[in-house]
Amino acid sequence: MADQPLVGIIMGSKSDMPTMEACMSQLDELGVPYELVIASAHRTPDKVHEWAATAADRGLKVIIAAAGKAAHLGGVVAAYTPLPIIGVPMKTSDLGGMDSLLSMVQMPSGVPVACVAINGAKNAAIYATQILGATLPEYREKIVEFKRSMAQG
Amino acid sequence: MADQPLVGIIMGSKSDMPTMEACMSQLDELGVPYELVIASAHRTPDKVHEWAATAADRGLKVIIAAAGKAAHLGGVVAAYTPLPIIGVPMKTSDLGGMDSLLSMVQMPSGVPVACVAINGAKNAAIYATQILGATLPEYREKIVEFKRSMAQG
Amino acid sequence: MADQPLVGIIMGSKSDMPTMEACMSQLDELGVPYELVIASAHRTPDKVHEWAATAADRGLKVIIAAAGKAAHLGGVVAAYTPLPIIGVPMKTSDLGGMDSLLSMVQMPSGVPVACVAINGAKNAAIYATQILGATLPEYREKIVEFKRSMAQG
Amino acid sequence: MADQPLVGIIMGSKSDMPTMEACMSQLDELGVPYELVIASAHRTPDKVHEWAATAADRGLKVIIAAAGKAAHLGGVVAAYTPLPIIGVPMKTSDLGGMDSLLSMVQMPSGVPVACVAINGAKNAAIYATQILGATLPEYREKIVEFKRSMAQG
Amino acid sequence: MADQPLVGIIMGSKSDMPTMEACMSQLDELGVPYELVIASAHRTPDKVHEWAATAADRGLKVIIAAAGKAAHLGGVVAAYTPLPIIGVPMKTSDLGGMDSLLSMVQMPSGVPVACVAINGAKNAAIYATQILGATLPEYREKIVEFKRSMAQG
Amino acid sequence: MADQPLVGIIMGSKSDMPTMEACMSQLDELGVPYELVIASAHRTPDKVHEWAATAADRGLKVIIAAAGKAAHLGGVVAAYTPLPIIGVPMKTSDLGGMDSLLSMVQMPSGVPVACVAINGAKNAAIYATQILGATLPEYREKIVEFKRSMAQG
Amino acid sequence: MADQPLVGIIMGSKSDMPTMEACMSQLDELGVPYELVIASAHRTPDKVHEWAATAADRGLKVIIAAAGKAAHLGGVVAAYTPLPIIGVPMKTSDLGGMDSLLSMVQMPSGVPVACVAINGAKNAAIYATQILGATLPEYREKIVEFKRSMAQG
Amino acid sequence: MADQPLVGIIMGSKSDMPTMEACMSQLDELGVPYELVIASAHRTPDKVHEWAATAADRGLKVIIAAAGKAAHLGGVVAAYTPLPIIGVPMKTSDLGGMDSLLSMVQMPSGVPVACVAINGAKNAAIYATQILGATLPEYREKIVEFKRSMAQG
Repeated sequence: MADQPLVGIIMGSKSDMPTMEACMSQLDELGVPYELVIASAHRTPDKVHEWAATAADRGLKVIIAAAGKAAHLGGVVAAYTPLPIIGVPMKTSDLGGMDSLLSMVQMPSGVPVACVAINGAKNAAIYATQILGATLPEYREKIVEFKRSMAQG
Repeated sequence: MADQPLVGIIMGSKSDMPTMEACMSQLDELGVPYELVIASAHRTPDKVHEWAATAADRGLKVIIAAAGKAAHLGGVVAAYTPLPIIGVPMKTSDLGGMDSLLSMVQMPSGVPVACVAINGAKNAAIYATQILGATLPEYREKIVEFKRSMAQG
Repeated sequence: MADQPLVGIIMGSKSDMPTMEACMSQLDELGVPYELVIASAHRTPDKVHEWAATAADRGLKVIIAAAGKAAHLGGVVAAYTPLPIIGVPMKTSDLGGMDSLLSMVQMPSGVPVACVAINGAKNAAIYATQILGATLPEYREKIVEFKRSMAQG
Repeated sequence: MADQPLVGIIMGSKSDMPTMEACMSQLDELGVPYELVIASAHRTPDKVHEWAATAADRGLKVIIAAAGKAAHLGGVVAAYTPLPIIGVPMKTSDLGGMDSLLSMVQMPSGVPVACVAINGAKNAAIYATQILGATLPEYREKIVEFKRSMAQG
Repeated sequence: MADQPLVGIIMGSKSDMPTMEACMSQLDELGVPYELVIASAHRTPDKVHEWAATAADRGLKVIIAAAGKAAHLGGVVAAYTPLPIIGVPMKTSDLGGMDSLLSMVQMPSGVPVACVAINGAKNAAIYATQILGATLPEYREKIVEFKRSMAQG
Repeated sequence: MADQPLVGIIMGSKSDMPTMEACMSQLDELGVPYELVIASAHRTPDKVHEWAATAADRGLKVIIAAAGKAAHLGGVVAAYTPLPIIGVPMKTSDLGGMDSLLSMVQMPSGVPVACVAINGAKNAAIYATQILGATLPEYREKIVEFKRSMAQG
Repeated sequence: MADQPLVGIIMGSKSDMPTMEACMSQLDELGVPYELVIASAHRTPDKVHEWAATAADRGLKVIIAAAGKAAHLGGVVAAYTPLPIIGVPMKTSDLGGMDSLLSMVQMPSGVPVACVAINGAKNAAIYATQILGATLPEYREKIVEFKRSMAQG
Repeated sequence: MADQPLVGIIMGSKSDMPTMEACMSQLDELGVPYELVIASAHRTPDKVHEWAATAADRGLKVIIAAAGKAAHLGGVVAAYTPLPIIGVPMKTSDLGGMDSLLSMVQMPSGVPVACVAINGAKNAAIYATQILGATLPEYREKIVEFKRSMAQG
């Protein structure tokens, strides 16, 4: 069962990968299995649609969506799944990521995307684990342990 | 043939209607037939998908998409149609529409949405007509006439 | 068991209540039991500390923190609990809520707060339910149902 | 006829050229003939005026205007032609291009400039082709093909 | 000679008049003769061009240009006259005038527009008088007197 | 007595140290004894709490808190001590420090943090000395001397 | 001795008075004697200069400077006195007070002004008392008491 | 007489010199004599005061003030002279110069500073010459000539 991915990571472009590696390594460290896909809400909408619409049935519990600029990916995925979406707004070279942040966080009523900080890849992994830990003692314990070791610095 | 809609107007919420009326009355004034739909990229994604994917085949030539906050509507429509999309970022009560503007205009490479000003409903109508007039003399003449009467003010 | 609160709502000031009522009524509508406390990270830090540190043991699964201006409440609660925190940045009269948003969303590495939109009270309720539904079929079903009825408009 | 330029590219300064090369190479790739001019709304206003006022008669169908800082070029061209103008706000070293963007996109009522993203040179080319494709099947097909190949990524 | 206008005030729209009245009454108070025109850089470009190009020959010494949103008026006038231009960025309902300010103040190299504050109509009048007073003792004395009475104010 | 620290410097992360060295060297230059701690409001909240709650009893008179992004450190310390807190918002790589600044300066009613400039490490040292000098002639004289030598600069 | 003012309040304009009343009533409540002056760094610079340069000798210990827009008042006072300056950036009608905040807080090296929140009149009073309480037990006790009563809500 | 400086350039810090060299070389090119001083409104206020208060009597006609961050220099000089002040907001490493710009341009009623673009050193020189040319044919002609040669590019 340990191999069943619980977190789905979707990113809008290969160029988001270096930033998002901190997310994956944190999930690895916390022992949370994940799957990864690169798909654009705009360039490959059908791939996103298909991936999002089947995410819950494939056993995913949480989705992490990373995108930059007019970062619609989180919202588009949110439209097709009941799973909670964690948005990671990518830093941009011109506006510093303010565009990505507002495009993700300002979701209209009814379809939330909850955002972590600009380039907050590691925190997205922790938050995904916290979501699992909301109800699953095994993951709760991982977070408790993580916070304890962080406090010991 | 005058009745075949050439411009499709899509807006994310009924609350965008008062602002967008300036768009429709300007299209009426310029004699450009349009159709109108209210559909949300997030709340009713299938409706948007269907509408966008069939827009070109239904004879539409240009699309005007109005949305506010994390305004993904233009980008989502753009993903499903080869037609040019004119984005109208709606003014928002907290950030003045800066969120809507950046969510629309900062589209990533490959899938443009071209934006007019925040709440620029009237200009969207004029621009849609300019697009038609790029190649169709009848609409070019309407713009020339519009500019002439504006200059006489 | 239906009476055991699963969501804890904490807000920094009584003045946040009118905005946050949309959160509570949405939780009511979705049938998610919650508890509510008004406490300030700055004026009543011990109350916040105590509430946060015992939240998990009291059976809460998710926390919604609403605050404005230098909105530290979410971060302070996050420091004392392994539960996932949903931040609701309050609109402010001078900067429109940009201050609240950045103070919440830009959490440093290790301690995430995931934010919904400025004044996104209703979406916080939906997101809390999505978190519960990540692993609990009963709440998953509520979200599926909610999305279905929203799509039917 | 293939040699008749359909798109006119005007840029405010030679320093915009490196960024705008992505526009020209995309137009080349899509097989859209264009002409290019460097002229400043402020330093060489008569050249801009003359170029804009004769653009339609020279057979241009769409204009792409790239400028930075107080980026008036698009608006000034728009004042003298019925053709649709696509604005490309240049990234600036101090404000990241927010100045260019607002100077272009916030056009007042009656004279629209539709903007793509900051430094969105490639998207301007695609959008210009979409405008041609609004009514000309040959260019519509190019866009359909472009989107298809992009989706296959 | 007192009747020869020395300051030319140009504003982009009749809607700027209420704000600009503070400019005119301040000029009246300082005894500086002015002329006034309403003309849009975009809607009536030829009128602006003609007015600007003949301003110096008509005896004007300074120009005050008031405009809002993508406020190109000052820059366009500056392109056609050697006279110094004082820009007055109009407050806007969505972005508070940040768009007007950046569109005016961020003029590219070679063609300056010097801006006063958003809605700084009164200060534009004082500044115009300071420009006259740079070399004309009569107007220098008016400013000295104005500052003296303000200091006693 | 000279060795009793009067200023407590707390910073959220070791990465703030290079910027904050200007603070320490300025305090050294002014002859103001200080103590230094690195502790995070979020990762090590108990350490912050303990340090803040005992600061006054340990003889500290002023606290300098340096933090970046969602910079809660100053506010959290302020909640636990009657001493005046000087906030130093750290420059951030994405938003330039605007996030840190707003997170620190926009403190709600009742619990102030007074901020110096982004990365204003040196000024924080001067301000701490000014606070001591408000009532202690020895430190007043140091500031007078510092200003004198700066004026001769 | 109780009547000797310890805090000097200076504000740039009579129009700042309604906002600053919260400052004065908080000082009254805390039993901190103050003096009040309205003087502009720009319109009445000599009055500001004189007031600032003699503030310390008149027995003032702390200065609160309130100003809006290009809010130079705090910095100008700081140039002429060794006393600590607390800046209160006034909310502005166009930019919400962002202009006042940046004009006050971003002081260059050597001459700090420490800012409270936009319109943070009450917090300025508390902070002034904290500065007095840094070394004077009587005022320290007032702050301790104030915080205690606030915590009891 | 050609050696009598007509323009006074004041800058807040030696670090502004590299940027301001473009101002001086442009004045040289236009044949406008100037004097230069480095003085800080905050660190050396008496020097600024003295320089500003005697500027007119020394024969200066226009002042160019360059400063960064909380850029009070222009306003402080304006308080002591009837001459027109041209503000040059310096680019800053954290906020890109937005702080400098707002601190300069948003001057309150009665005491204008007219700003050119961020780092607009060259344009300040041109504008100073335009001010001289407002009434002096010799300098008017220089501007006419400058614009002519610029138009020939």
